[in-house]
Amino acid sequence: MTGDLSPDLTNMSIYANWAKCTIRYSDLDPNGHVNNGAINEFFEDGRVGFRNDRMISLGDEILTGFALVKFTVEYLAPLYFPGSVDVGTVVTRIGGSSFSLGQGIFSDGACVATAKVITVSFDPKSKHSQKLTPELRTILASSSLKL
Amino acid sequence: MTGDLSPDLTNMSIYANWAKCTIRYSDLDPNGHVNNGAINEFFEDGRVGFRNDRMISLGDEILTGFALVKFTVEYLAPLYFPGSVDVGTVVTRIGGSSFSLGQGIFSDGACVATAKVITVSFDPKSKHSQKLTPELRTILASSSLKL
Amino acid sequence: MTGDLSPDLTNMSIYANWAKCTIRYSDLDPNGHVNNGAINEFFEDGRVGFRNDRMISLGDEILTGFALVKFTVEYLAPLYFPGSVDVGTVVTRIGGSSFSLGQGIFSDGACVATAKVITVSFDPKSKHSQKLTPELRTILASSSLKL
Amino acid sequence: MTGDLSPDLTNMSIYANWAKCTIRYSDLDPNGHVNNGAINEFFEDGRVGFRNDRMISLGDEILTGFALVKFTVEYLAPLYFPGSVDVGTVVTRIGGSSFSLGQGIFSDGACVATAKVITVSFDPKSKHSQKLTPELRTILASSSLKL
Repeated sequence: MTGDLSPDLTNMSIYANWAKCTIRYSDLDPNGHVNNGAINEFFEDGRVGFRNDRMISLGDEILTGFALVKFTVEYLAPLYFPGSVDVGTVVTRIGGSSFSLGQGIFSDGACVATAKVITVSFDPKSKHSQKLTPELRTILASSSLKL
Repeated sequence: MTGDLSPDLTNMSIYANWAKCTIRYSDLDPNGHVNNGAINEFFEDGRVGFRNDRMISLGDEILTGFALVKFTVEYLAPLYFPGSVDVGTVVTRIGGSSFSLGQGIFSDGACVATAKVITVSFDPKSKHSQKLTPELRTILASSSLKL
Repeated sequence: MTGDLSPDLTNMSIYANWAKCTIRYSDLDPNGHVNNGAINEFFEDGRVGFRNDRMISLGDEILTGFALVKFTVEYLAPLYFPGSVDVGTVVTRIGGSSFSLGQGIFSDGACVATAKVITVSFDPKSKHSQKLTPELRTILASSSLKL
Repeated sequence: MTGDLSPDLTNMSIYANWAKCTIRYSDLDPNGHVNNGAINEFFEDGRVGFRNDRMISLGDEILTGFALVKFTVEYLAPLYFPGSVDVGTVVTRIGGSSFSLGQGIFSDGACVATAKVITVSFDPKSKHSQKLTPELRTILASSSLKL
């Protein structure tokens, strides 16, 4: 897998991992919509769920050895309380020391927001970026977009 | 129902209404526990769910004509991510212009926090407290602790 | 200092320590008021500021060796965005293994909420409550309500 | 001003408007850093402050007639509690029915995150996008990047 794929992130069938989140009353804005900040928290839960589900075999440390460096979100439709959302996550690029994820948030099957994420692996001690290990590359490949 | 009942709020069988909330990664404290603020949001979702489930027949305005004036919470056990909680809510007192609720948060059946809440009915225009209407008293009675 | 004092928590002059917090747009409810959850976060920042300001000399561990076990808040007036609040904190009781705090949140000098807090000291390893140390008792006494 | 300018968003001198936010204890992650979600809330407060400071003359409705459609953030450095941040905002593009903003978050003068934002003007009734009015274009131009 070379280069960053540009899949249709509004298509539920592309995702490798799913998380579910309930909407809270405190997520609501004065305009009665779910605040963008809450939507960003749903994306985060999708990413953490992806790590917990797929990478936990690599040990606890793997969970603290990543940094989110770039996050691009498109807000497509308003979201309301009460309810829940499904958050899909898929690997779209595996680089030397970083990888990219695509994400989508769905309410009753309708896409309300999509995100592109760049995550860098780093050494928690030196704080420098480090090569993705072969074990991690295998896991990422198994969670990648299928073409 | 006169006086404020003091039920055992850690007993799941006393509750009249239930809401379910998922825990978010962003709810976590530096110590790895769910922050008390998130627990308070779960209690809020229990109360809003109670209003939506039980009082919606009274019209939308009923939802804005209440003010939470006193909230007492006891934190009994730490809570962790990932997971979800069940929030139980029951009416424990029906007064002239106010009522009281008891609430409990449960994780896999274990109580992690309880709360007592006093809510006052007020006129959204005048901002003054007002008598609970007969319709509202009937609803509250049907959601009250059974002894 | 024996027994729990019941000072007028709406009186700014009783407080021993102060923190300042800015209100965020995301704190707003659908009704345009600051959500109670945000107000509870301001109280938390008052308590953490109190520990950082007064107890840091006892070492970092002191900050993780406390648990909030009971929190009682009274919401007195609505709060709006934008703006900031001042959070006052004072010790109202020093017990064997626990102590109590009184807190108040003020917007331009007007009290919008008050809280009573019970905090227990515990051993982070055994998870059991433990006696307040003499050093801690001295600090708490110096931050206590003056009568 | 045509096309989207690509200024150095880590340069404090480019910004037209500033907001200040305090960091909260509840913003902290299990790793002891300020959570990305809190950083996104600071960006939001920068945008709302920009609207309140610059556009309020256009009437209250102007504040509800915008939708954030795309948000791209780069996280450059960890941020810690306690403290506060300064959020700079500047107009980088004025289009037909949309405009773009650049933003930066600074802690003691050091940039910890930057963001690019696309906002669309829409008719709150029809929910369709609408042309930026001449009055709004004048305001945006006066808040634009100076080259």
